[in-house]
Amino acid sequence: MLLYSHPLSANAHKVLLLAGFANIPVEEAMIDVPGGEQRRPPFLAVSALGQIPVLIDGDLTLRDSQAILIYLATKHAPAWFLADAATQGRIAQWLIFAALEQQNGINLARLSNRLGVPCDLPAARAQGAKSMAFLDARLAARDWLELDRPTIADCACAPFAGRSGEGDVPLADYPAVARWLDRLRALPGFHPMEGFA
Amino acid sequence: MLLYSHPLSANAHKVLLLAGFANIPVEEAMIDVPGGEQRRPPFLAVSALGQIPVLIDGDLTLRDSQAILIYLATKHAPAWFLADAATQGRIAQWLIFAALEQQNGINLARLSNRLGVPCDLPAARAQGAKSMAFLDARLAARDWLELDRPTIADCACAPFAGRSGEGDVPLADYPAVARWLDRLRALPGFHPMEGFA
Repeated sequence: MLLYSHPLSANAHKVLLLAGFANIPVEEAMIDVPGGEQRRPPFLAVSALGQIPVLIDGDLTLRDSQAILIYLATKHAPAWFLADAATQGRIAQWLIFAALEQQNGINLARLSNRLGVPCDLPAARAQGAKSMAFLDARLAARDWLELDRPTIADCACAPFAGRSGEGDVPLADYPAVARWLDRLRALPGFHPMEGFA
Repeated sequence: MLLYSHPLSANAHKVLLLAGFANIPVEEAMIDVPGGEQRRPPFLAVSALGQIPVLIDGDLTLRDSQAILIYLATKHAPAWFLADAATQGRIAQWLIFAALEQQNGINLARLSNRLGVPCDLPAARAQGAKSMAFLDARLAARDWLELDRPTIADCACAPFAGRSGEGDVPLADYPAVARWLDRLRALPGFHPMEGFA
């Protein structure tokens, strides 16, 4: 399996965390994201949305880190997602939280600082702080976002949370989130990347 | 089952489409979204993110329309989602497309026009047009977003696409999308709402 990726991509990190924890062989092919390679041919023939990560597995081309998590867990790591319908729905809530709430807040603030991506920075930071507070409240009295073990919910939300400081939302203000990230780091197979290592 | 909803909520419409097509009994409880009821107690005790829709099914409380689609289809309408891992991953791509790309574009432009939600309107319209073009290309030579039948991918993406004109992104510019919406309207159990009826 091939993952179009970049060393700074927290979205790629979501996938690489699961791959590491569940021992799924995923090889990275690096795309020059700061140079805009993902928005030009030939990459647009791989994925017309012009975003990474994209997973290639045989004749399957899959965009979006959350969709890739659902695919990989369903196929190779069922303990990380498959359960009764209610549990899968609850896990899916966190995938959307990562894709939308975290993306529009802490990740946007971070990309503005690191890559100059244009945004309303105060608004992105405020939304980032709100999403961190939401995570912190959730994790105050539990080890993982859903179930009594890690799931793809944790893989989806940790990479943005772990890099919140890069968007000037200090992780130290959210101690339950910091402890949860440490629990993830301590799991066998943890895949470190710059920013959350 | 109870769905916290609002007559203008395209996100609630995603859920109500599936419920109608698959004959799942869902009752609506209306929240005064323009008045901000979803961001105040007592609703914040239902969902601390302060958003609708939220589904209540016995002791399950589920936020986010995409997560609710996964839950309801898995439990009550398997033909709308359950398949091999690759197919579920491909369907999930469209759930995220709806939650992120459409939300940040055509829905934001629409909410700005209808409810005065603050945003960078030209940027929202431009992203809205891009997401409509992406859908139009996808649907140029096929009836449904994935598979040879409708799935929750179609339920997730149609409500925003059907209301694109409310964000000044004219549906008439995307004829394949318009034909796809007509196919959905013609299905038994179609649930009409203002804006996509």
